[in-house]
Amino acid sequence: MRVERLESEPAYSFGPREPALTVPPGTVVELSTEDCFGGAVRGVDDLPSRVCQFPYLNPVTGPIAVEGAEPGDTVAVHFVDIRPRRDWAVSTTFPHFGALTATHTTAMLHDPLPELVWRYEVDVDRWTCRFHARGSDFSIDLPLDPMHGTVGVAPAAHEVIMSITPGAHGGNMDTPEMRAGTTAYFGVNVDGALISLGDGHCRQGEGEVCGTAVEAAMSTVVVVDLVKGAACPWPRLEDDRYLMSTGTARPLEDAFRISQHDLVGWTGHLLGLDTLDAYQLVSQTGLAPAGNVVDTNYTMLAKIAKDVVGVPAFDGVHDRLRATAARYLAER
Amino acid sequence: MRVERLESEPAYSFGPREPALTVPPGTVVELSTEDCFGGAVRGVDDLPSRVCQFPYLNPVTGPIAVEGAEPGDTVAVHFVDIRPRRDWAVSTTFPHFGALTATHTTAMLHDPLPELVWRYEVDVDRWTCRFHARGSDFSIDLPLDPMHGTVGVAPAAHEVIMSITPGAHGGNMDTPEMRAGTTAYFGVNVDGALISLGDGHCRQGEGEVCGTAVEAAMSTVVVVDLVKGAACPWPRLEDDRYLMSTGTARPLEDAFRISQHDLVGWTGHLLGLDTLDAYQLVSQTGLAPAGNVVDTNYTMLAKIAKDVVGVPAFDGVHDRLRATAARYLAER
Amino acid sequence: MRVERLESEPAYSFGPREPALTVPPGTVVELSTEDCFGGAVRGVDDLPSRVCQFPYLNPVTGPIAVEGAEPGDTVAVHFVDIRPRRDWAVSTTFPHFGALTATHTTAMLHDPLPELVWRYEVDVDRWTCRFHARGSDFSIDLPLDPMHGTVGVAPAAHEVIMSITPGAHGGNMDTPEMRAGTTAYFGVNVDGALISLGDGHCRQGEGEVCGTAVEAAMSTVVVVDLVKGAACPWPRLEDDRYLMSTGTARPLEDAFRISQHDLVGWTGHLLGLDTLDAYQLVSQTGLAPAGNVVDTNYTMLAKIAKDVVGVPAFDGVHDRLRATAARYLAER
Amino acid sequence: MRVERLESEPAYSFGPREPALTVPPGTVVELSTEDCFGGAVRGVDDLPSRVCQFPYLNPVTGPIAVEGAEPGDTVAVHFVDIRPRRDWAVSTTFPHFGALTATHTTAMLHDPLPELVWRYEVDVDRWTCRFHARGSDFSIDLPLDPMHGTVGVAPAAHEVIMSITPGAHGGNMDTPEMRAGTTAYFGVNVDGALISLGDGHCRQGEGEVCGTAVEAAMSTVVVVDLVKGAACPWPRLEDDRYLMSTGTARPLEDAFRISQHDLVGWTGHLLGLDTLDAYQLVSQTGLAPAGNVVDTNYTMLAKIAKDVVGVPAFDGVHDRLRATAARYLAER
Repeated sequence: MRVERLESEPAYSFGPREPALTVPPGTVVELSTEDCFGGAVRGVDDLPSRVCQFPYLNPVTGPIAVEGAEPGDTVAVHFVDIRPRRDWAVSTTFPHFGALTATHTTAMLHDPLPELVWRYEVDVDRWTCRFHARGSDFSIDLPLDPMHGTVGVAPAAHEVIMSITPGAHGGNMDTPEMRAGTTAYFGVNVDGALISLGDGHCRQGEGEVCGTAVEAAMSTVVVVDLVKGAACPWPRLEDDRYLMSTGTARPLEDAFRISQHDLVGWTGHLLGLDTLDAYQLVSQTGLAPAGNVVDTNYTMLAKIAKDVVGVPAFDGVHDRLRATAARYLAER
Repeated sequence: MRVERLESEPAYSFGPREPALTVPPGTVVELSTEDCFGGAVRGVDDLPSRVCQFPYLNPVTGPIAVEGAEPGDTVAVHFVDIRPRRDWAVSTTFPHFGALTATHTTAMLHDPLPELVWRYEVDVDRWTCRFHARGSDFSIDLPLDPMHGTVGVAPAAHEVIMSITPGAHGGNMDTPEMRAGTTAYFGVNVDGALISLGDGHCRQGEGEVCGTAVEAAMSTVVVVDLVKGAACPWPRLEDDRYLMSTGTARPLEDAFRISQHDLVGWTGHLLGLDTLDAYQLVSQTGLAPAGNVVDTNYTMLAKIAKDVVGVPAFDGVHDRLRATAARYLAER
Repeated sequence: MRVERLESEPAYSFGPREPALTVPPGTVVELSTEDCFGGAVRGVDDLPSRVCQFPYLNPVTGPIAVEGAEPGDTVAVHFVDIRPRRDWAVSTTFPHFGALTATHTTAMLHDPLPELVWRYEVDVDRWTCRFHARGSDFSIDLPLDPMHGTVGVAPAAHEVIMSITPGAHGGNMDTPEMRAGTTAYFGVNVDGALISLGDGHCRQGEGEVCGTAVEAAMSTVVVVDLVKGAACPWPRLEDDRYLMSTGTARPLEDAFRISQHDLVGWTGHLLGLDTLDAYQLVSQTGLAPAGNVVDTNYTMLAKIAKDVVGVPAFDGVHDRLRATAARYLAER
Repeated sequence: MRVERLESEPAYSFGPREPALTVPPGTVVELSTEDCFGGAVRGVDDLPSRVCQFPYLNPVTGPIAVEGAEPGDTVAVHFVDIRPRRDWAVSTTFPHFGALTATHTTAMLHDPLPELVWRYEVDVDRWTCRFHARGSDFSIDLPLDPMHGTVGVAPAAHEVIMSITPGAHGGNMDTPEMRAGTTAYFGVNVDGALISLGDGHCRQGEGEVCGTAVEAAMSTVVVVDLVKGAACPWPRLEDDRYLMSTGTARPLEDAFRISQHDLVGWTGHLLGLDTLDAYQLVSQTGLAPAGNVVDTNYTMLAKIAKDVVGVPAFDGVHDRLRATAARYLAER
C-alpha cells in the first residue's frame, strides 16, 4: 500500500494545471482542505461579503494526476476518512445566493435577505456539531456527517471552470453522499485526470437550501484508482449499499433527467437488460434525492440498491478500495 | 372508535361533489380503490392507449366529508392499512408520458417510446411483487411498499381538477411516503373538505420515472380527523420519524422551493425560531427526495427528523391517529 | 350579417356553464368586459389586496355557444374592435405576483415588493394612455394598443379552471397579439365550445413583466365562426401578416417548445413538408416573443410570416372574418 | 478614422489569450470569420457528426484588445457590415441538439432525430438565400439578414468557456439582433477586454429552434469603442430604435428575468425613475423575443423603444459609432 501526502496551493477552478502530486492507481493520498471561505469567516461578525473576495472562494486542493489515466478512462476517488480540523465550523446566508432568495440568475427586484453567520461548535470526540440560533437561545447538537462538497477532474474541451460550478467534470455538486465510505467515479478528460477537492462540510441537508453547509477545514484521506477503458459521462458514486448516478444542470428537472438516464443505462448495462426494462426497474426501485439546488448548476442523484442490481460495477473497484481503506486505517 | 365503510362510484377529478360518506372527525374509514387504469390493463397485451380512454383514467374513491371542516381548517388522513386486492399488478410506459420521454408539454419531434406493459405477480403473504423483464428472462422479487399516489381534497376557487394533476389540494403527488403509518394533512377549501383517494401502488421509486408505478387495486383503511383553525397551504405528511412538506409545481426547482419554504416556516413555527434560523436549521438537517417528476405538475418533498424538531405538530394529532389505528388493527 | 348583443354575469372560470348567448357561425357579437380587478381599483389608494377578493378576480364575459361546434372542431374568434370604456385605466404590482418577485410557487423568504397602483389617463380620441411615475414627475403618453388578456373555451376533461390560469383551452394567455384584426382559434372540447373573454388591456409589453397590464373595461366586438373537423391542440392566432402558435406551460422553455412544435406541424401541414423540412424552415424564419411570464402558466408565441407560408390556413376563414368585420364597421 | 485588419487563428473558447490585434478605442476593424462547422459542411452529405470533431466547433476570430479597457469599464462593438463570403451556406440538425429534441441535458431515451443538412444558395446581389426542402421540391428565397451568433469578451474569474456557451461574457447568444447597425456592449473582465466573434448567420429565426441557423463564413467590419467606468453586468445591445438587455441562463424564465431585470435597472437609471416606476414602464412598453433556446444556456432579450426612453445610453456612443460607420462605408 502506497501512501502519499499531498501539499498544494489553493486553486479556485478546475482546469488543466500542473499536478501537485502524481501517483500510480491504488495510492492512498493524505491531504487537507480549507473551508469554502478560505478560513476567513471565523465568527458571526465575519460577513463573507466583507471578508471574502470573488473569485477567491471555495479553494480546492490538488490536482492529483493519476498515472496512466487518459481520456476514455474513469478515475475512482474513494473517501477513507474526512475529519474536521478545527473545533468550529461556520454557515452563512450570502446576498443573492441560496434556494429561497432572488439570485443573480433568478433575478428579482427584492433587496437581499440579511447576511448572517452561524458558528457551530465541533466536537470530534462526541462526533457532533452544535447549532446555535441567532435570534433566540435555541441550540441543538447535530451528528457529524463529514463530506466534501467539491470533488472533480479537469473538464473537457480545455475549459477552465470555477470551483463553485458543478458539471460533468464533478466540481461543486454538494451532495451529502460524498462521505467516507463512498467511491466517486469521474470520466477522464485530460491525461492524468487531475483530481482536485475541497469544500468540506461537517454535515449538510439535501439541497443545501440556504447556500452553505456547516463549512469546515478538513483532514482527508482518499484512495485514487483507475478503471481503464470505462466511460463515465457524468460523475457516479458508490457506497456499500447503493449505486448512484448524478446529474448536474438547470432546470432541476434536467439534473433529474440526466441522473435517471444515466442510472437506467448503467443498470441496463450491468444486468444485460433492454433499455425499457431498465427504465421500468429503476422506476420502481430508485431513490432520487437532491444534491444542491443553489449552485450555478443544480445536482440530483439517482440511486439504486446494490441488492437489486446484484452485480459489481466497474469491475468491483469499490470493494477493492474498501479493502485498501481498511488496511490503511488499521495500520495508521 | 367509529368505523365506516365507504362505497362510491369512480370519479376522475377533485372538485365540489356530493359526499359519498360524511363522518365525524376521528372516524376509521374502510374503502377500496381501483388502479389507475380502472382495472383495464390486465396483461402485457392490454396497451393503455387501447384499453383506456382519456379522461377516464386514475379513478378516485370518495369524497369523504368531514363534519365541521371549514375553509381555514386542516384535515388529517392517516393511513392505517394499504393492501393489494389482487395477486397481480401492472406498470407501463405510455406514449408521451414519463420523465425520459418527450411529452405533450416538453414537446419534441420524436416518435413516442414503445408502449409496453409489465405484469407483476403480487404475493401478499411474502409481501413481494415480482418484476419480469420483457426483453430477457431476468426477474426479481421486490418488497411490497404499498401507498396511494393520489390523495386530496376539493380545490380552492371552485376549480375542478383532473385526478391526474397534483396541486395545493393534493391530488396525484405520487410520493412513496404516502404509505401505512403516514398522516397526510390538507388545508380545507370547501365545507367538509371532500377527501378522495386512489392510484394505489405496490411500490414506486422516487420520481416515478417511467410515469407509472406498480399499479394495483387496493383495500385501504384510513382514519380522518380535523385540526380546527390550522392552516396548511400545501399538503404535509408526518410519520413516526419525519415531518414532511410537499411542493407541487413546474419547474422542479419551484416544487423544491415550495416544499423547503413550507418546511422552513413550519419548523420555525414549531420551535419559535426566526425565519433565518429555521432556514439554517433545515438547510443542515433536511432531506429532499423527489415525489413525481412525470405528472402535469412535479412534486418534491422536504423532510426534517422529528428528533431535531422535538415538539409535536398539529397538536399531536399524528400520535392520536396512530393510537386509533393500533386499536382498530387489534380489534379487526 | 347577423349581429347579437351579449349580456352576462361575470364569471371567474372556464368550464361547462349555461351559455349566455347561442349563435350560428359567422355571427357578430357585441359585448363589454370589466377590467381584471372587477372595476374595484380606481385610483392609487385602491390597493388590489384590499379592494379585491380572491377568487373574484379577472371576470370574464360569456360564454357564447357556437351552434354546431363539437369536440374535434375548431372555433374562430375574430376581434373586430376593442375600445376602452372609461377615460382611465390602472396597473399595479400585487404581493407575490409578477416576473421579478418571489411568488407563491417561486417561493422565497423575501417580503413582498411594495404594492403600488398606477392610474393611466386614457384618451380614445388621441388613442393614447398616459403613464405617470409614482416616485417622480415623469410622465409619457403611450399609444393605445387595446387587446384582451383572457380569451378561451371550456376545457377538456370536464375541468373548471380559474380565469387567471391559461392553458390548452386558452384563458389568460396575456399576449399583446390578441388585438383587433386578429383571429384566435381554439380546439372545441364541449358542445358549443363556450367562448368567454375578458381582461382588456389598453396595452401591455411582451411578458407582462410586473404582472398586470394597463387594465381597462372594454367595449368589444367579435365575430365567431366554426371550422368543422379541424383540430387545434393549442390556441392559434392569425392576423394579416402572421400565423401564430401559442404554447402555455411551465417552465418557459416548455411553453416555447409547445409553440414551436405546433408551428412546425402547422407549417408542414400547410406546405406539404416533411417534419424536418418544416422544422428547418420555421427555424430560419420564425419569431418567438413572450406572451406572459407571470401567470400560473407562461405563454410563448411562435410566429411565421404568411408570405413565407403562402397558402391560407383553416380554409381562409381569417379573410372571410376580416370581410365580415369590414362590413360591420362600415354599417355601424 | 483608424482602420485595422485582424488576422487570427481560429479559437474555440473565450478566455485570457494573447490578443491578435490591439487597437485604441474608435478603431474600425475588418475581419473574416469561418462558419460554425469550420467550413467542413459543404453539402448535404457532409454530416456534421462525421466531418466535425468536438470541441473544434464554432471557431471565433480574435481576440481584439481595446487599449485602456479595464475591469469596471464597458466595451462597445458596433457592427458596420456583415457579408457572406461564399455563394452557399448550410444548416443542419445535429444529434441531440436543438429545441425540439432530447439533448445531453434534457436527457431522454429517444433515438436522435435524423441528421440532415440543408444547403442554401446565397445571392449577395439579390440579398437572398434560397431554402430547398430535402423531402420535396419546395423551395423559397428568404431575405438575407446577416448577423453574428457569437460575440463576447474574456469571462470573469479566469474562466475559459467554450465558444458554444453563452453567458455574462456574451458568447454564443445567437440573437438575430446582432446585425449590422447594432452596437453590442460587454462589461470588461480582463485588461483589454479581449473581444472575439464568429458564427455568422445569413439569417436565423428567434430561438434558433433546430439548433443551427443559415451558417456562413462572413466578411465583417466592426468599430470597437470603450466606455470608461460604465458597468454592464450582462451584454446589452442598441440599434437606432431600441435599447436591448440580454439574459442568458437556464431555465428560460431565468434568462427572461435577467434581461428584464437589467432593462428595468437601465431604464430607471436613464430616466431617473424609482425601480418600481421603471418596472411599470418596461412592463407596458417592452418587447421580449427569444434569442436562442438551444445552446448550453438560453438567451432572452428585453427591448424598449428609444422614443420611450428619450435619452442617450452610454453617453451616446451608439450615435458616434454610427457616424464612424457611415464615414467608413462612404470612404471604402
